[in-house]
Amino acid sequence: MLTNPRSDRVKAVRSLQKRSVRQRTGRFCVEGPQGVREAVRYAAGRVRDLYLTPEAAARYADDIVAPARAAQLWLHEVSAEVLAGMAESEAPQGVLAVVDDEPLTLGAVLDAGPRLLVLLTNVRDPGNAGTVIRGADAAGADAVLVSDSSVDILSPKVVRSTAGSLFHLPVVTGLEVEGALAALRERGVRTLAADGTGRTALPDADLTGPHCWVMGNEAWGLPEETRTLCDEVVSVPIHGRAESLNLAMAATICLYASAGVLRSGGSGR
Amino acid sequence: MLTNPRSDRVKAVRSLQKRSVRQRTGRFCVEGPQGVREAVRYAAGRVRDLYLTPEAAARYADDIVAPARAAQLWLHEVSAEVLAGMAESEAPQGVLAVVDDEPLTLGAVLDAGPRLLVLLTNVRDPGNAGTVIRGADAAGADAVLVSDSSVDILSPKVVRSTAGSLFHLPVVTGLEVEGALAALRERGVRTLAADGTGRTALPDADLTGPHCWVMGNEAWGLPEETRTLCDEVVSVPIHGRAESLNLAMAATICLYASAGVLRSGGSGR
Repeated sequence: MLTNPRSDRVKAVRSLQKRSVRQRTGRFCVEGPQGVREAVRYAAGRVRDLYLTPEAAARYADDIVAPARAAQLWLHEVSAEVLAGMAESEAPQGVLAVVDDEPLTLGAVLDAGPRLLVLLTNVRDPGNAGTVIRGADAAGADAVLVSDSSVDILSPKVVRSTAGSLFHLPVVTGLEVEGALAALRERGVRTLAADGTGRTALPDADLTGPHCWVMGNEAWGLPEETRTLCDEVVSVPIHGRAESLNLAMAATICLYASAGVLRSGGSGR
Repeated sequence: MLTNPRSDRVKAVRSLQKRSVRQRTGRFCVEGPQGVREAVRYAAGRVRDLYLTPEAAARYADDIVAPARAAQLWLHEVSAEVLAGMAESEAPQGVLAVVDDEPLTLGAVLDAGPRLLVLLTNVRDPGNAGTVIRGADAAGADAVLVSDSSVDILSPKVVRSTAGSLFHLPVVTGLEVEGALAALRERGVRTLAADGTGRTALPDADLTGPHCWVMGNEAWGLPEETRTLCDEVVSVPIHGRAESLNLAMAATICLYASAGVLRSGGSGR
């Protein structure tokens, strides 16, 4: 059992909280049982090391330890102090994994013939970004695209707020927005800017063909130069006195509206 | 200007962070410019005292100070230390209001002939509860109903996460679930339990008449005894590999599905 919270290994894992270290090493941390379980289940080939306290190893014997052993992953028993020294969150519930990033390209996503995508531009809040990934997963989106100006998807807070969905669908990061929009159009994917300025209300939007929702910043929405590059600007109707919905809610409502149309055969609204 | 952070007034305002004090006094705190602005705009008659730092008073001269003066509210200039001593949040941005609670009855809400309601049972997370109120506002719901087993809606965290929506639509609290469901049925409001066990998927649910979404706890959903008291159990489809949506997202998707049907004249889906 690893018990020294000042060891080089603990320092190395903890250093993955820094974006620069994640970029240099191509690794990131997953904290907590939900995320780790999904990583083991859907991305075992990328899990480098698993760290569990004895209590967590007993508690998650069936859904983490057994499948991790079956996949011949490196399991390390650690003290609670060691785990606390590695983790960003206060309560990772005794479970942490170091996982290899798997950089995906937009080209690979487009080659698979996607029908429903979402592109995050300038999304800065980790909780919002993670919740959109979770919502995109639940709505059955084919991938999530993330601009280079958005929050780092591999930061601990984002990883945690995806609740494991990060390992359920492809997430392409580091995209330059203008180039991504051009690539989408070239491959027949309509781009729908979700923005309060849109003259098309969501219930009237044509969601029958392959399309990509384009989401802007939490506070200031999408800049005009991005909106004009999209095929259509669509607003989620605000019926009451609320000023707006938060970004994650707006994205999830749009994605679920799309899922409803695409799964009914794409024939109606 | 009030400058003594240890004064009786500061202590009295700060004590409103305790549920017992809120219940005894019938008052609660609203922190931050967004909530305070909406309180002044839509519930000026209930605002007892407004506290602003000089910087905040200058910054929000048009959208808080001017309408507050027009409504003859009590404005107090305070130092940043005094405001910090009153507030629960670390950064209330120099603005805080003490507001009277206005207890509403379910009967009054039902007398108004509501078409769309949501009932929170056993919702414990302040952020979830507040976000549902915000989502209900945006979807144009007629009121939010909250069970006696749920988080206190007047706690600072819930008030903050409603982003002002608390003052936009009626919120009835302290309801006993069984009695509330019976009262709804008696007045012709169908009750739809939102739960993963539902055999009716959301796109197939009949949302044409007056109805109330019934939401359960974040972790364990709705107990069977509550589900059986509802007219129908409806599940939000999970298309990808996600285990679930968070409560606020599920509620908002349901409410927007309802809004789409009710606002199209209630004739179709």
